[in-house]
Amino acid sequence: MVNSPHEGGAALGEFERIRRFFAPLAGPGGLGLVDDAALADCRTGYRLVMTADAMVAGVHFLPEDPPDLVAKKLLRVNLSDLAAMGARPLHYLLTTALPISLGADWVEEFARGLGADQQLYGVDLLGGDSVSTPGPTTLSLTAIGEVAAGTEIRRSGARPGDEVWVSGTIGDAYIGLGILRGGYPELDDENRAALVRRFQLPEPRVRLGPALVCIAHAMIDISDGLLADLGHICETSHVAAIVELPALPMSAAARRVAALEPGIAARLAIGGDDYELAFTAAPEAAETIRGIGAWLDVAVARIGRIEAGQGVRLVDATGRELFVEVTGYRHF
Amino acid sequence: MVNSPHEGGAALGEFERIRRFFAPLAGPGGLGLVDDAALADCRTGYRLVMTADAMVAGVHFLPEDPPDLVAKKLLRVNLSDLAAMGARPLHYLLTTALPISLGADWVEEFARGLGADQQLYGVDLLGGDSVSTPGPTTLSLTAIGEVAAGTEIRRSGARPGDEVWVSGTIGDAYIGLGILRGGYPELDDENRAALVRRFQLPEPRVRLGPALVCIAHAMIDISDGLLADLGHICETSHVAAIVELPALPMSAAARRVAALEPGIAARLAIGGDDYELAFTAAPEAAETIRGIGAWLDVAVARIGRIEAGQGVRLVDATGRELFVEVTGYRHF
Repeated sequence: MVNSPHEGGAALGEFERIRRFFAPLAGPGGLGLVDDAALADCRTGYRLVMTADAMVAGVHFLPEDPPDLVAKKLLRVNLSDLAAMGARPLHYLLTTALPISLGADWVEEFARGLGADQQLYGVDLLGGDSVSTPGPTTLSLTAIGEVAAGTEIRRSGARPGDEVWVSGTIGDAYIGLGILRGGYPELDDENRAALVRRFQLPEPRVRLGPALVCIAHAMIDISDGLLADLGHICETSHVAAIVELPALPMSAAARRVAALEPGIAARLAIGGDDYELAFTAAPEAAETIRGIGAWLDVAVARIGRIEAGQGVRLVDATGRELFVEVTGYRHF
Repeated sequence: MVNSPHEGGAALGEFERIRRFFAPLAGPGGLGLVDDAALADCRTGYRLVMTADAMVAGVHFLPEDPPDLVAKKLLRVNLSDLAAMGARPLHYLLTTALPISLGADWVEEFARGLGADQQLYGVDLLGGDSVSTPGPTTLSLTAIGEVAAGTEIRRSGARPGDEVWVSGTIGDAYIGLGILRGGYPELDDENRAALVRRFQLPEPRVRLGPALVCIAHAMIDISDGLLADLGHICETSHVAAIVELPALPMSAAARRVAALEPGIAARLAIGGDDYELAFTAAPEAAETIRGIGAWLDVAVARIGRIEAGQGVRLVDATGRELFVEVTGYRHF
């Protein structure tokens, strides 16, 4: 083929790569990945919800990271965005820009990771593109979900008097990244592995998000860090948030690290990549929220409140404001 | 922010870049680009049609290409895929991986190009992502359209007895790329500019595609080259195609080049990036198709026929098969 903008990869052409590794992942709407575009049905009374995230080798993951984990993380960060709107995941489209030097093994492992997560989350591949690049592996995924029209949970719905909640535990991924960079050498292997895994493989709250429809007033998934992401809710809702540091849910592994390095607790609130849900709801909803958490076996913790005003304040047990040094943008 | 997988770019952070350049492009479903995901409604009785394409600087466009043209080409190649299914374009999502060194000027021009094409094609931005990369500028766009359920035009519908049609003219982009590489120095400036423009700025047949619903049996947009793309129709439809070289529609500029280099005509059928539509239809539909072309002011030409069998054959005026040397995968 001449001048094809779609052709890429030396060892394996685009068509062969798609046929061998990606076509088996296609759902009915993907039309076997042999058409120009894919089809997505939407049930009457529902809306489709869409989000896209990109990941670059050396920036968002390490080139030597296991390809199946990279694939899963790429899918999961997008499913986390859908969950934050209260949407149930359905489909995804994928574009890959791969270095010529990348072998078929990498792509096979990558596709294997996607396949495993497709089963886990009940989604399928609709289509995409596969091109070559002289630069780092660059991946982009568009995820599609559904929500009953009008029930989508926005960032802008927080109201003074709401309580602030988070799912799961906070800060594990932040410590996990620190471990990958050589930090916390005194920590035992089991806890190290647990924390690294939380960084490499987030667990998007795909069941909790939709269960909070008509309960949560505002919701976001924590990717930039708890305080920063609550800041996004405050900004779009025109309110202030107070977060109580002692109320932050920490994993057993993170508590172990905090015992070794007491100052770390507050920094966990600004670490990113948690992919937990942060949401606000009326105080009367507290019992319902705890019930949903118990039913879905997802920890939920009340960590603060929404007030009139602006900005996010982190306070200690006495209500005194804590100032956390933001160490700035850091990737690998 | 710490460890943010969403933060990128040195001169301008992601949030500022999105707020300043991309938020003005967002449609109602994009929610001002301040939420985790976007909303897309689908009318009852319709399906959404989705496609994604990626472009890499140095592979699919030149780093020094005007950013507004790069943006338009990225959008248009996707709209072309929608048109090939008979779908009307509605929305798109965009992810950009941009080198730190890329200035705000580039992004501003890029967004300006998108804005102009949004108006031209009646689409809006739903969302996406913006990250940094140590490698070349890498862009991925997911386009969303709609089609009345069941009327989508597939590649697999061609039947023996069908006639083969193409829109517009074939091979201009192939020659245009050759000119950018220093070829055809004897050609006059006006024709050079016209051909280069056809390479840099395709015109997706967004009105012709949907107008062919219930008329075309199979359709594809020509990106890999006329013969290769007809080959995709033949493969999925389990038929053969015969293309008559003298029937290929050539632009005035391409005819000028062919006068200088007589052997080029056949090569135009394997050049890519035309972004014209190739489709098949029953012979009885010929008058209707010509009428649609006249109504939309889009040239349509009957170039061959579908037979039982497999593969694509290019024949001369006497029906003798021509063999075109495929010079292989070439990018910049």
